[in-house]
Amino acid sequence: MSQNQSALLTDLYQLTMLQAYFDEGMQETAVFEFFVRALPPGRNFLLAAGLEQVLCYLEQFRVTGAELDWLRAHGGFREPFLAALGALRFTGDVHALPEGTACFINEPLLRITAPIAEAQVVESRLLSLMHLSTLIASKAARSVLAAPGKLLVDFGMRRAHGAEAGLLAARAAYLAGFSGTATVLAGIEFGVPVFGTMAHSYIEAHADEISAFRAFARSFPANVVLLIDTYDTERAAEKVVRLAPELAREGIRVRGVRLDSGDLATHARAVRAILDQGGLSDATIFSSGNLDEWKVQQLLASGAPIDGFGIGTSLDTSSDAPFLDCAYKLQEYVGTPRRKHSEGKATWPGRKQVYRRFAPDGTLDHDVVALEDDPQQGTPLLLPVMRAGRRLAVAETLASARARAAAEMARLPPNLRRLDPSPAPYRVDIAPALRALAQELDRMRH
Amino acid sequence: MSQNQSALLTDLYQLTMLQAYFDEGMQETAVFEFFVRALPPGRNFLLAAGLEQVLCYLEQFRVTGAELDWLRAHGGFREPFLAALGALRFTGDVHALPEGTACFINEPLLRITAPIAEAQVVESRLLSLMHLSTLIASKAARSVLAAPGKLLVDFGMRRAHGAEAGLLAARAAYLAGFSGTATVLAGIEFGVPVFGTMAHSYIEAHADEISAFRAFARSFPANVVLLIDTYDTERAAEKVVRLAPELAREGIRVRGVRLDSGDLATHARAVRAILDQGGLSDATIFSSGNLDEWKVQQLLASGAPIDGFGIGTSLDTSSDAPFLDCAYKLQEYVGTPRRKHSEGKATWPGRKQVYRRFAPDGTLDHDVVALEDDPQQGTPLLLPVMRAGRRLAVAETLASARARAAAEMARLPPNLRRLDPSPAPYRVDIAPALRALAQELDRMRH
Repeated sequence: MSQNQSALLTDLYQLTMLQAYFDEGMQETAVFEFFVRALPPGRNFLLAAGLEQVLCYLEQFRVTGAELDWLRAHGGFREPFLAALGALRFTGDVHALPEGTACFINEPLLRITAPIAEAQVVESRLLSLMHLSTLIASKAARSVLAAPGKLLVDFGMRRAHGAEAGLLAARAAYLAGFSGTATVLAGIEFGVPVFGTMAHSYIEAHADEISAFRAFARSFPANVVLLIDTYDTERAAEKVVRLAPELAREGIRVRGVRLDSGDLATHARAVRAILDQGGLSDATIFSSGNLDEWKVQQLLASGAPIDGFGIGTSLDTSSDAPFLDCAYKLQEYVGTPRRKHSEGKATWPGRKQVYRRFAPDGTLDHDVVALEDDPQQGTPLLLPVMRAGRRLAVAETLASARARAAAEMARLPPNLRRLDPSPAPYRVDIAPALRALAQELDRMRH
Repeated sequence: MSQNQSALLTDLYQLTMLQAYFDEGMQETAVFEFFVRALPPGRNFLLAAGLEQVLCYLEQFRVTGAELDWLRAHGGFREPFLAALGALRFTGDVHALPEGTACFINEPLLRITAPIAEAQVVESRLLSLMHLSTLIASKAARSVLAAPGKLLVDFGMRRAHGAEAGLLAARAAYLAGFSGTATVLAGIEFGVPVFGTMAHSYIEAHADEISAFRAFARSFPANVVLLIDTYDTERAAEKVVRLAPELAREGIRVRGVRLDSGDLATHARAVRAILDQGGLSDATIFSSGNLDEWKVQQLLASGAPIDGFGIGTSLDTSSDAPFLDCAYKLQEYVGTPRRKHSEGKATWPGRKQVYRRFAPDGTLDHDVVALEDDPQQGTPLLLPVMRAGRRLAVAETLASARARAAAEMARLPPNLRRLDPSPAPYRVDIAPALRALAQELDRMRH
């Protein structure tokens, strides 16, 4: 079993709590919800993502014999709890926002209803999966909004925080509307389209630039996108123009060039002129190099003739907001609503639903968070996806989630679609009955 | 083979370049170096880390049959290149800074000398591994410097960017001097000490707080650290005092309490007084909740009686600087030095060594980066660790790397040890012959 699938990829306290619940005979149904407490500066909305990974995790959850042996030798765990832990499977229910749904603070993105041990032990990994994919999809969505119709490619695996981050960032970016990724394994695992041609080292390893261009074109005649900033960008563009007729005689077309450094707008204009004058007006200009959604917006606003963007580090690390203030909290146990009262971290108790209301033009107007047994007007967003540990439908395709994200983003009101912080945050109402319940629990608290 | 070990966890352009090198018959020796271009704001030094993961990756590098099938079906790869790719193993040499070594900009942390296909194809994953571990070790070192002698525990897995990020963050933090982690699997995989007791949900699932405390103490009599901020911190501390004699009669000692919210300094003082007056002066106070090295320093400077800190999100995401501007660049091919000239991204060419010079009191004075065949005064930092694809020694233990990090940090001059930016960055000289070589290559460039 790989690291990513281990049930012990979790915090120790999940297991110590499970031992204590076992000793106390506590095994009633608990309800936990995953939600985001606050949007980071620079985010007007989130795109829910990571559900597919969570469902896979829940389906295959089990502690192996070798892991039980380790626990036996460490940390005070005892039989017969360890036997029970070895037999533990996820048999609960899951409600969730479908991937690609736009969402906001205090809205449950996912709800788990299960015997308390099962609902508790999955906390750490469930948080990790929902957090990462929602974080990156929400970041990627900003570039998609900033560059409508442009080719956007995830270039970030090398500076993503490890293997899973790189792979799930490629998936999340594609879900949010990117065209693809440079990461080969994301193509294999998720079917994300994969892009790539050459690095500077390829150019440098050759005696001269034009030899490198020629050799690459012959190796990949259908994918001739040449990197032209290794030495002098404009001189390299001239070399491309000189080389093009020779390649054309071999039936090879120069599809485009890539710029990766310097003032991209200035270079793009100069290169565009050189290519156009050289008869290569069909060749596209792709740019990369420390880009983010702001720089992309700026380049396009300046009229820079750039057809596509490779976005790496800023996307894969969500560098301006590298985490979400998210939580997975107990909201109900044995049928009784629960509330964490800790200063600054109080939660909305009970099992909840989110209702979305739309303006007459079809854009999002506001949401209402309410107790599940207190129906509201609007479209309920949380849907049942797993019952008694089994999926209610086959896994959604990534293409379907991607289409949903596009539809959701199209329905965002203009103030949420801009990169700048919206003057007013999106309105999320707390229904009166939920508010009353929270106050009642405050009065009763021990 | 798991995701983390796949040779196709790489950028597509590595493979397209390999196909082109193959078509051209280019198979001479290349030298690539990994280095950091600039320190992010808020870092005065870095701790090199990730070498062990890189060596494991190089040792097991191979493309599987299923992966070759995928490449055959996608992207223009052809036999007999694919057969060669399937046979490709890493047979090169590696020089590196040992893990835990303090290091600075423009210094190679790692050098690969190998046939160009081998040296090229490992780029993306090597960058990912060196980047992540060096990033987190360097972040963790700051908390270690801010809280000498305190218990520091990594709490960040849930918001780390995925599975590998959480695991390697636990390892990197321990390497840098943390006491341990909450992540169980990091205990299993790396032997990092694992800490944990209970979450708020455990308290909330009980009818009242004192019942939860009592039950947990009986389940884990040797590890009674009670979370006291679920409802009212000081009242919970009083409950702990009332419960302690009852537990003592059962032979159970309250080891400590944990605070996770509110004004930690104020609560810690009040709780300390309550515990002391209640005969629990041996019980420690552990705190957590959105901490970073600055808050830890502030709490200790204010005299807050806190014995240990759980640091999560800020550590595992290196939230103030979530990436390093690092690169892995071709420096030599067929015995000829190479230089990338791209604007703002020019590199120091040739295969290099780093020499460290110490002040009379034993602290670091400055470093010199020089060509390997141009020896300098001082201690050379890059050591041979792999030859012809085989390690030159058994894997270093994490304890040994951790001891090195501690020794290195003890030798940092005071201006680098503080959290604030050092008024002057650490001096890294470029040796005259290296500077001359770079200028010569600039003159020769195509």
